[in-house]
Amino acid sequence: MTKDLKIFKTNNSEVYVGNDVMLVLNEMLGRYANQKIFLLVDENTLLHCVPALITKIKVLEDAEIIEIESGEENKTIDICYQIWKTMADYEADRNSLLINLGGGVITDMGGFIASTFKRGIDFVNIPTTLLSQIDASVGGKTGVDLDGLKNMIGVFNEPIGVFVCPDFLKTLDKRQMMSGYAEALKHALIADADYWNDLKNGMLSDGNYWSDLICRSIEIKNQIVTQDPKEKKERKLLNFGHTIGHAVETCSLKTDAPLLHGEAIAVGMITESFLSNQILNLPEIELKEIVKTLKCFYKFNKLESDKFHQLLELMKNDKKNSRDEINFTLLQKIGEGSVNHSADFTQIIDALNYYNSIL
Amino acid sequence: MTKDLKIFKTNNSEVYVGNDVMLVLNEMLGRYANQKIFLLVDENTLLHCVPALITKIKVLEDAEIIEIESGEENKTIDICYQIWKTMADYEADRNSLLINLGGGVITDMGGFIASTFKRGIDFVNIPTTLLSQIDASVGGKTGVDLDGLKNMIGVFNEPIGVFVCPDFLKTLDKRQMMSGYAEALKHALIADADYWNDLKNGMLSDGNYWSDLICRSIEIKNQIVTQDPKEKKERKLLNFGHTIGHAVETCSLKTDAPLLHGEAIAVGMITESFLSNQILNLPEIELKEIVKTLKCFYKFNKLESDKFHQLLELMKNDKKNSRDEINFTLLQKIGEGSVNHSADFTQIIDALNYYNSIL
Repeated sequence: MTKDLKIFKTNNSEVYVGNDVMLVLNEMLGRYANQKIFLLVDENTLLHCVPALITKIKVLEDAEIIEIESGEENKTIDICYQIWKTMADYEADRNSLLINLGGGVITDMGGFIASTFKRGIDFVNIPTTLLSQIDASVGGKTGVDLDGLKNMIGVFNEPIGVFVCPDFLKTLDKRQMMSGYAEALKHALIADADYWNDLKNGMLSDGNYWSDLICRSIEIKNQIVTQDPKEKKERKLLNFGHTIGHAVETCSLKTDAPLLHGEAIAVGMITESFLSNQILNLPEIELKEIVKTLKCFYKFNKLESDKFHQLLELMKNDKKNSRDEINFTLLQKIGEGSVNHSADFTQIIDALNYYNSIL
Repeated sequence: MTKDLKIFKTNNSEVYVGNDVMLVLNEMLGRYANQKIFLLVDENTLLHCVPALITKIKVLEDAEIIEIESGEENKTIDICYQIWKTMADYEADRNSLLINLGGGVITDMGGFIASTFKRGIDFVNIPTTLLSQIDASVGGKTGVDLDGLKNMIGVFNEPIGVFVCPDFLKTLDKRQMMSGYAEALKHALIADADYWNDLKNGMLSDGNYWSDLICRSIEIKNQIVTQDPKEKKERKLLNFGHTIGHAVETCSLKTDAPLLHGEAIAVGMITESFLSNQILNLPEIELKEIVKTLKCFYKFNKLESDKFHQLLELMKNDKKNSRDEINFTLLQKIGEGSVNHSADFTQIIDALNYYNSIL
């Protein structure tokens, strides 16, 4: 029988995609036969994913399970501290392995914890959300937030392997799925007009659809990242929608209606498409197509105009920005992003007002 | 006029030694002309070293000075958190530079802070103690302690340059100098019998003596580290005296008479020389020579035997040890270390008792 397994080579690692990836992981874990293995999970993956994982990989029965609460608000240095302590208490050494099973919070934070524990131990990522399967799975970014500022503390470091199992998506609700879908739409907008057309008309119910989507997104992201691992130039393409999107996300986390990452990025894609139209002459018709498509997939709420100033402050502090300007990745046209465009505060305010005007 | 300047190439950086190193740093800082520069100091280097530094490097008048309290007990994640926050508040970005001016606490912790802030910014080390000039200056280790466990959290990452200015040693008291001297003695014991003889008969008052000592120690350490940056094998040579020494140091930090690093390593060198005699047949006469020399340089206190168990527990948790054995670097003879020897608890207790017996 043919295995359901595709392999993508990254700079220093591999991403395995398919419902048979656990066969590869099972074999890989042979190397850690006499070593401590830690499994980092949240309450959701503990309930929905750990049993399936242990059924397929017996050796994980003996793994030490470390559970944290789900949610971006737990992606902090304080939680890292507790996990480092737990690992030290369980006598983790330099030959130990950390397996991160969960969404982006778990894989980003777990990657940082492993990269810094005793100056670096091996780790494996098993992303379980659509967002983490197509985004956090590739590129070697690890990190945690600092007082709500996203991914301010981290390192670039790749896991020894990433195992993407589309079966895990069955554990997600629609809102979580659509949060990941936003990153797929972004991949399409910056690099592949055909992919955009396919996603726009998406047949979300078909089984294979997700596997194909994951592979196409990973392929686009991996191609960009391997050219520029440390985000000096090309990799900034992936920031489309994220300059304003990150600020909107951070702001929303302080309210009682926090947005999911992809929902905030959808706001970012509308506002930054407007900027693309203003600054790079993205055709009006394509701007309208992007807005119409995103409105079809997401339920948007207006931004309060008295929060605009706060959003600008957050953008200034985004790690991607140099001191005195806000740097954007914009679109020339659908399927073609362009890096290093600066916009001034007036232009950004205009974009935020445009967003409110189309709702 | 000839410049007082020597250059050592490390894997990805350079170490500059001499009283003219600031000329090189001054030139290097040209690259950061429009960027934020941060200067990490403690109360000692703020008082004794910053004025001299700013006199030589005018551009540092505009640097943001971040001051922390001196002492190993401040080498914590909590202090990192405060410094990351301060840098974010001052709008540090990916092009900012952090200059670490101080002893090993400042350079280890500052290196970690820079390596993880926004996934890594450039940093420069200016070690000001003898210990940091000959030890922390080479090898790319960064890190902080975790609940008193030394350097448990960190990464391997090299500064863009290390600037060793022997003039700064004039600001140190004798106890601090002797703490560094212990690492020089270790370099000699593991790699260079001639150097050992020179140090044993040291003429500590002569001006050039320190510059020569620094260069010889850096040369030995750099040669070892470039072969094995991630401490898989050869680099473990440098751990001589450090397995028991680290445990003694950690233990002493909880008392009201904390030892300096080198003072604890001196205890480690006596006990581990005893183990070398027992396990590797280090000649009795050389063991006695080592003990006699160290007793001549350091004032030792007996270890309380009811603390032996605690010391063993600390050794088990040392990041250099795998789960079920204590790994030692021992001496074949003076000037020749040998890695990866395990000793059991009885042998270690014998070594601790031997140490008490020779005082």
